[in-house]
Amino acid sequence: MKKGDTFQHSFKVTEDIYKGFIDIFKDRNPLHTDAVFAKQKGFAGQVMFGNILNGFISYFAGECLPIKNVMIVSQEIKYSKPVYLNDELEFYAQIADVFESVKLVEIKYHFEKSPKVKVAQGKIQIGII
Amino acid sequence: MKKGDTFQHSFKVTEDIYKGFIDIFKDRNPLHTDAVFAKQKGFAGQVMFGNILNGFISYFAGECLPIKNVMIVSQEIKYSKPVYLNDELEFYAQIADVFESVKLVEIKYHFEKSPKVKVAQGKIQIGII
Repeated sequence: MKKGDTFQHSFKVTEDIYKGFIDIFKDRNPLHTDAVFAKQKGFAGQVMFGNILNGFISYFAGECLPIKNVMIVSQEIKYSKPVYLNDELEFYAQIADVFESVKLVEIKYHFEKSPKVKVAQGKIQIGII
Repeated sequence: MKKGDTFQHSFKVTEDIYKGFIDIFKDRNPLHTDAVFAKQKGFAGQVMFGNILNGFISYFAGECLPIKNVMIVSQEIKYSKPVYLNDELEFYAQIADVFESVKLVEIKYHFEKSPKVKVAQGKIQIGII
């Protein structure tokens, strides 16, 4: 992995993922589970959990890099637009820095939904183990 | 919610959560699924997914605050120690800043496992909606 390398992956926020997330983490906040509440707050429907995107980042780090001996050291994410059920997200990442002395790679990323709307962005530090 | 307010919650990384996380996010990286690989890398066994802790943060933000009309705006997490299956984690959070003009609350947090070992820490920005 070297500076400038890019990665791309498609994710979809399916009903299985949404319901599975609620099953395991028990977050039933009304913004995410009550369409009437979410609409009162100005959204088109229940807003998907931001941390579903962090689950996608887990998949990216664990499965989409050219090596498997990796471990997430830190993560940052900023949510800029709501994501709804069945939204298809395109994930774009680029290696921003490689710190060979400490076996660390810094990756910048963002998620887009059609048409070219950035919904979240951030940074991931990945250690080579 | 005001500056200095503190929160605490106990979480356990159960088998249901671990297996559920794999089911929904499909991250089967060997560090998290192959005990032999993880031990070769110096760990005591499969390391739990860091993003399980982010799922716990979703629960905290959605369910443990005194108000429900909240939305995570951004999150940061730094992982400092491995978490293993069935580890019991204590989550400590404190409101670091309240920005009333933009209805934003900044919370600093960390997760500990017994005996007083900090396993992860970070910051969450929560918007009041």
